[in-house]
Amino acid sequence: MATSGVKLYGGRPSPYVNRVEMALEMKSVDYELVEMNPYEKSELLIKLNPIHKKVPVLVHGDRPICESLIIVQYIDDAWTNGPSILPTDPYDRAIARFWAAFVDDKFFPLLRQMRDTKEEEAKRLVFEKVLEAFVLLEGAFITCSKGKAFFGGDTVGYLDIALGSFVGYLRVSEMMNANYKILDETKTPCLAGWAERLYSDSLVKDAMLDPHKLLESLTKLQALSKTDSD
Amino acid sequence: MATSGVKLYGGRPSPYVNRVEMALEMKSVDYELVEMNPYEKSELLIKLNPIHKKVPVLVHGDRPICESLIIVQYIDDAWTNGPSILPTDPYDRAIARFWAAFVDDKFFPLLRQMRDTKEEEAKRLVFEKVLEAFVLLEGAFITCSKGKAFFGGDTVGYLDIALGSFVGYLRVSEMMNANYKILDETKTPCLAGWAERLYSDSLVKDAMLDPHKLLESLTKLQALSKTDSD
Repeated sequence: MATSGVKLYGGRPSPYVNRVEMALEMKSVDYELVEMNPYEKSELLIKLNPIHKKVPVLVHGDRPICESLIIVQYIDDAWTNGPSILPTDPYDRAIARFWAAFVDDKFFPLLRQMRDTKEEEAKRLVFEKVLEAFVLLEGAFITCSKGKAFFGGDTVGYLDIALGSFVGYLRVSEMMNANYKILDETKTPCLAGWAERLYSDSLVKDAMLDPHKLLESLTKLQALSKTDSD
Repeated sequence: MATSGVKLYGGRPSPYVNRVEMALEMKSVDYELVEMNPYEKSELLIKLNPIHKKVPVLVHGDRPICESLIIVQYIDDAWTNGPSILPTDPYDRAIARFWAAFVDDKFFPLLRQMRDTKEEEAKRLVFEKVLEAFVLLEGAFITCSKGKAFFGGDTVGYLDIALGSFVGYLRVSEMMNANYKILDETKTPCLAGWAERLYSDSLVKDAMLDPHKLLESLTKLQALSKTDSD
């Protein structure tokens, strides 16, 4: 399949956009990143994604595809010549999809709730829930990686992309307040090691901002609006 | 792949369990339906689905798979000799996944909110939102079916299963109060026709209860608890 005519609409501070970038890098797809402020519902964004009005949107040829994990699966289905993003075994695929849904439906909403909770005691309670969810993800890592470096085995896969897109945010959160350390070597040693390996991986490094730059971009964006993107 | 050793845990009044039954019927997989009260968090349910503690759970051999749409995709991946449940074209697959997520994340929560809203004016407002979402699904039907009988084309597919599992509930809702007619021939003629065809389809009929029986089962279950299942 031709790799030309691929445009990704979104901005790098979005972990959801990062997911799509990682998947495109994995498949060595040439693409144009069209920067779009996720808080501005432009006419173009509404045309590309009339239902959710959110980035990322991948346009392949003239057809838009929305929702980050659906786009990642699309990339895996459409560019079959690169490495497989989802596991090839049906059961392993189901388990990867299960935990990716857990990241989006449970883990990330807790991170967001923690960010938005200002009162210290209430924030601490949410933080405890974040840690509980992260311990579950540690268990998922042990199951999925089967003793190898990534959720996907020897190389980055679907769940590495799904959860990995939040690693920058976990580091930013820790930079802002050392009391809220989520990537903790004592509580979740496997995930702490995995996050280090992931950030050293060339294709992930290319797709994601350094935590310091991420913090800078986020601060600028937060000044623009409080609405969230996907 | 052997079709023996397949158990489905759940009860028929659950639309999520219905989805799995439809998928198993499509692939002609022999399975044992193990009835489980969705409101009772039994030791067995907690062992099979420790994260969400919900039905349906499909056990294939000795391995449990949870979350209805993930199970349906697993069935499609694991039994490749039957008809394909998801479209084969990557773009069509992405679109089917997009609208299935819309059903679970937007449409069904609105149906649930409508059911739980007792005050008449507030209920009417939620009903308007349900209809708006259903009009969007009418548009999705026109796009996906390409002039054929089902979302999946000539035969039932992924999105027919995802949305079709709620058709019984739409009919029960109408039986209980004729003012809340969702399957309306004037507003959403394509979906009204589709629902008729779907309920006449032999494999769907086998997997789902008649709306009168469904109402009876639901009434019994509601008496047991107000917690929701997935």
